[in-house]
Amino acid sequence: MARNIKLYYDFMSQPSRALYIFLSMNKIPFERCPISLQNFEHKTVEFRKNVNRYGKVPCIVEQNFRLAESVAIYRYLCRAYPTQLHWYPDDTIRQARIDEYLSWQHLNLRAHVSLYFFHVWLNPLLGKEVDVKKTERLRLRLDEVLDFFEQELLCNGRQSFLAGDHISVADLSAACEIEQAKIAGYDPCEGRPHLNNWLATIREKTNPFYDEAHKYVYQLTTEHIFTPVVKEDE
Amino acid sequence: MARNIKLYYDFMSQPSRALYIFLSMNKIPFERCPISLQNFEHKTVEFRKNVNRYGKVPCIVEQNFRLAESVAIYRYLCRAYPTQLHWYPDDTIRQARIDEYLSWQHLNLRAHVSLYFFHVWLNPLLGKEVDVKKTERLRLRLDEVLDFFEQELLCNGRQSFLAGDHISVADLSAACEIEQAKIAGYDPCEGRPHLNNWLATIREKTNPFYDEAHKYVYQLTTEHIFTPVVKEDE
Repeated sequence: MARNIKLYYDFMSQPSRALYIFLSMNKIPFERCPISLQNFEHKTVEFRKNVNRYGKVPCIVEQNFRLAESVAIYRYLCRAYPTQLHWYPDDTIRQARIDEYLSWQHLNLRAHVSLYFFHVWLNPLLGKEVDVKKTERLRLRLDEVLDFFEQELLCNGRQSFLAGDHISVADLSAACEIEQAKIAGYDPCEGRPHLNNWLATIREKTNPFYDEAHKYVYQLTTEHIFTPVVKEDE
Repeated sequence: MARNIKLYYDFMSQPSRALYIFLSMNKIPFERCPISLQNFEHKTVEFRKNVNRYGKVPCIVEQNFRLAESVAIYRYLCRAYPTQLHWYPDDTIRQARIDEYLSWQHLNLRAHVSLYFFHVWLNPLLGKEVDVKKTERLRLRLDEVLDFFEQELLCNGRQSFLAGDHISVADLSAACEIEQAKIAGYDPCEGRPHLNNWLATIREKTNPFYDEAHKYVYQLTTEHIFTPVVKEDE
């Protein structure tokens, strides 16, 4: 295959990790192009001009074709490369369920994890004050969305994965998102046994790539009580 | 066709309008099920249980199949019903470009329009104070995202539509989103001639359904200077 995918990513970015794991699991060859978010390499004029006009990671470049947004990239890769069908099945109902989650998560799980992470973890690094009341408000919203995840999306354990009996890109996206909260000292699994077991399953099914992509996340969470998630006896 | 789609919607919701127009343009028969956001009909236990567990509109119910999120619904309808190909082409690059926009918009165009709309228009109706500094901050962000839309996504007029030479679901979603800002007294077309003409084209190509779906938006904006958008001479 003469194609050559360049993946621009930073392991501090949740969708970057998910896409890295997806490419690796499906044995799609790609060139690693790490981008430092900390050094704002994604915001340079050159990056916007030559790689991604949106100024974000992850994104891919394949010859002259540039594509941003992990959700769009999964779908493109599933059309253009041989991938395991369970990641994005061609069954119309299961595909719709995956699309529904991947659309919903932006302004819900992703937004609430990110807001908490930025306020509690990033702000102090930037010399900004952490507002206690705001932290509490953001924590409550994060609690709510993760309770919804536990009770509705995992149906309190009656559903193994987000779109049926097999792991899909929806699970991968969600797991990498949820891990981010731990950096800010928030334990997403506390009081959520089904989320804990689901998260451990995603890790297990996608290792060694999951741990590789999360090595910085694990390092940054050592100051808290968390260790990489493992299944608990039910 | 024995199928029967029920569309749950409120014309005050941007993606509800877009989906209503899409269904109408493609002559997909559907039953109208208006839901009042103002009366929180989308948050009732019954609605969550029987219609949409996410507690949002738009959503569809087709026999026992329930689907939320307009982006997921477009894709499902394009697989399940005869639709005009230009809305969501099977060409892999154009489809990827549409997917990219529809993924990007959630935390960008949609987030910034909604934040401005809620703060400036909805808060006073709820008896909440409108913070002048916050308004200014939100306006600046909305300016930025619409300037990006004008300059990058429409390439300063060199690109007729968001994903090439034909109208797609990306354009429909974007147009309905941008109209919402007008309710809050923000003129998205001011200083953006290409956005103005693109918006007028979307309206023209999807009328009479566009005007039907926007009738409340037009009513609510009469107190401002705006009239429904028409093309200007270039």
